[in-house]
Amino acid sequence: MHIRKKKCNFAADFMICEDLHSALSKILNSYEPDQVCFVVDENVEEKSDLSRTQIGLKCCTLSVSESEKTLDTVQRVWDFFFAQGLTRRGVVVAVGGGVLTDLVGFAAATYKRGVGYINVPTTLLAMVDASTGGKTGVNYRGLKNSIGVFAPPVETLIWPGWLQTLPAKELLNGFAEMLKTGLIEPSDVRSQYSDGLWEALLRYDIEAMPIEELTLLIRRCVAVKEAIVAADPKEEGLRKVLNFGHTFGHALEELSHAQAHPDVEPLDHGYAVLYGMIAELYLSVTKLGCEREVLQQLTQIMLHAYGKPACKCSDRERLIALMKQDKKNERAAEINVTLLRAVGSPVVNQTITADEAAEAWEYLFSL
Amino acid sequence: MHIRKKKCNFAADFMICEDLHSALSKILNSYEPDQVCFVVDENVEEKSDLSRTQIGLKCCTLSVSESEKTLDTVQRVWDFFFAQGLTRRGVVVAVGGGVLTDLVGFAAATYKRGVGYINVPTTLLAMVDASTGGKTGVNYRGLKNSIGVFAPPVETLIWPGWLQTLPAKELLNGFAEMLKTGLIEPSDVRSQYSDGLWEALLRYDIEAMPIEELTLLIRRCVAVKEAIVAADPKEEGLRKVLNFGHTFGHALEELSHAQAHPDVEPLDHGYAVLYGMIAELYLSVTKLGCEREVLQQLTQIMLHAYGKPACKCSDRERLIALMKQDKKNERAAEINVTLLRAVGSPVVNQTITADEAAEAWEYLFSL
Repeated sequence: MHIRKKKCNFAADFMICEDLHSALSKILNSYEPDQVCFVVDENVEEKSDLSRTQIGLKCCTLSVSESEKTLDTVQRVWDFFFAQGLTRRGVVVAVGGGVLTDLVGFAAATYKRGVGYINVPTTLLAMVDASTGGKTGVNYRGLKNSIGVFAPPVETLIWPGWLQTLPAKELLNGFAEMLKTGLIEPSDVRSQYSDGLWEALLRYDIEAMPIEELTLLIRRCVAVKEAIVAADPKEEGLRKVLNFGHTFGHALEELSHAQAHPDVEPLDHGYAVLYGMIAELYLSVTKLGCEREVLQQLTQIMLHAYGKPACKCSDRERLIALMKQDKKNERAAEINVTLLRAVGSPVVNQTITADEAAEAWEYLFSL
Repeated sequence: MHIRKKKCNFAADFMICEDLHSALSKILNSYEPDQVCFVVDENVEEKSDLSRTQIGLKCCTLSVSESEKTLDTVQRVWDFFFAQGLTRRGVVVAVGGGVLTDLVGFAAATYKRGVGYINVPTTLLAMVDASTGGKTGVNYRGLKNSIGVFAPPVETLIWPGWLQTLPAKELLNGFAEMLKTGLIEPSDVRSQYSDGLWEALLRYDIEAMPIEELTLLIRRCVAVKEAIVAADPKEEGLRKVLNFGHTFGHALEELSHAQAHPDVEPLDHGYAVLYGMIAELYLSVTKLGCEREVLQQLTQIMLHAYGKPACKCSDRERLIALMKQDKKNERAAEINVTLLRAVGSPVVNQTITADEAAEAWEYLFSL
C-alpha cells in the first residue's frame, strides 16, 4: 500500500494512542514508504519514548518559535529532505507544536510537488487545532500564515502522554481552542451526546486539568473540527465557523509580536483567541442577540484562569489596521468576522465597521 | 459567481480565442473577482492587444528566464500581491511563457493558501504543455521544478495570435512537446479522429509552420493532455505517460544550465525533450520491441529541423548522475522512465540500469 493521497477529503485520519512507539510503527508499516524523514522539535526530543534510536539518522531537529516560522526555516527543512534523497514515496513525520507542524506540513506539501506527512502534535493546542484540517503555512513579512497551502496530513497521531510534559500555561493555551470548539459545535454532532461540548467544558476542572477527562474532550473537539473541515475543506463558507475569535485574536497576536520586547513573552495563540472570542461574543450580543450569559461565562473563565490582556485602549487603531489586512477578509479593507447567534449557532461572513471593532476592543480592555 | 475552486478535477478549462481582449474580459466578468492582478512577461507586453490601459495599474512585469525561476522571484510576485491588497476573492492573470506561468501559478497557489489564477500562455510550448495540467513550481538549488504544488489554473486562454510573434526556434521548441503528445495519444482519444495525432504531425509542414493548421493541432494536443490529467491529476500512475522523453531530456537540460557559458544559450526545454525522446525511443525499441520505424521518423525530424545535441559522450556520467536525482523516481537512486510499446501505447514506471542509460546516450550522441 502506498501513501494515500487525499484528493477530495481534506479531513485527515486521526488516532488517539496510548503507546506512541507502536502506533507510529503500525502506521508506517501500513504505508510502506521507501523512507521516513523525521522533523522533531528539539524541546520535545527527550520527553517521549521516540528515542533517537527509533528515529535513526534521518532526523532533523528544529527549534521553531513563531518568529522563526519563516521561509528561511522551510528552506532548512527542504535542504534536509534533499540531503536525505527523499522521494515522493517517502513520508515525513512532524513531531512538535502547531508552529512546527504548520511549517513542516508546508515544506512537505511543496517538496517535489507534495510528499505525504504524518503529524504528531506535542502540545494541546496542536492536538485540537493545528495538526488536523490541512492548513499549512508560514508567516511572511510579519503577516501570520500568509503563505501556505491546504494540504492534509495522511494521519494525525495524538498521544496524551505529551500532556503530562506541558506546563499549565501551555494547557490553557490549547484549552482556549477547545472552548471555541464548544461554542460552535454543530447540532448534528451535539445530538450524538447527552449534553453539549460547551457545557462539558464549563464543568471541566480547569485548575486540576485531569488528563483522562481531557483526553475525552480532545477526542470530541477533533471530531467536531474534522466534521466541519470535511464539509468545506478550503474554507469557502462553513469552515469559517472555526475562525470564531480569530479576527480579533490574530490582530492581538500580531501586535504582540510586532512589539515584542526581549523581556516580555509575546502573546500565545490560545490566549489571543480567548481574548478575541470575548470581543467577538460582545459583538454577537450587541449585533445578533446572543445571550449575555455566554459572554459572562467566558469572561469568568478569562478572569479566573487566563488573566487580562496586556494591550490597552491606545492600541485600538493599530489593532484595527491589522484586522483590515487579515487574509480572511473577502474584500479589501473590510473586516470579516464569525459571530454567534447562540452557542452552537455561528454565523460566518459578518462584516463589521471600524467603529464596531473599536467598541468591542474597548469592552475587552475595560474588563 | 465566485472563482471556482477545482477540488477533484485538476483538468483546467481551456479556451482557444480569436480576440484575446474580449475573451479575457468575458472570463473575468463571469468570475466577478474583487480585483485582478496581472503578471506579464516584459518581452510580450507590447506584442498583443493587452495594452497597459486594459491592464491598468495592477500589473507587474517580470523577465523570467530559467535561471530566474527561483524563490526570490516568487517573493517579488508575493510582494506585488500584498502591495495590491489582493484577497482570496481576487484573481491573478499570468501572461507569458511556461517559466512565467509555472512560477506565477505557484505564487498564486501559496498566497494566502491559494488565490485563483488564469493562464495566458504566449509561447507554443506553454500552450501545449505548461499552462494546463496544474503543475506549478520553481527550480531550487539547481534542481528543476523541485519545489511546487499541483494547483490548476481556473482557466487557460490560448490566443493563436501570439504564434505570429514567435521566432521559428521557439515554434520548434513547442512542437517537440506536440510530437510527444502524438506518440502517447490514448486510443480513446485517437478513435475520435480519422487518423492518429502522430500521423497528422508527421504530415504537418514543419518548415512553413502554417498557423491555422497548427491551431487545430494545438487544440488536439491540449485535449489529449487534459484527458490524461483528469484521469490522474497528481501523477500517481497514468499521468506519467506525459513524461515520455523527459527523464533523459531533463538531464540534458539541467546539464546545459549547469555548464551555461555567457556566449552559449542553454538548451531549451522542447529541444531537450526531443533529444530525450530519441534516447527513450531507442530503449523502447531494444527493451519493449517498439517498431524501429518510429525512431527513424523522429530522428529524421531531428536532423531536418532541430540539429544534433551539443552534449557528447564524455558527458554521460554526469547525465546519469542527474537522472538518478530526478523527482520522478519513486525509489532513491533508480532511474524511472516511460517507454513505448508502440505509438499510442506508453508504459510507465520502467526502471532502467545505468548501463542501459549509457547505451541510449551513446546512440543519441552517435547520430
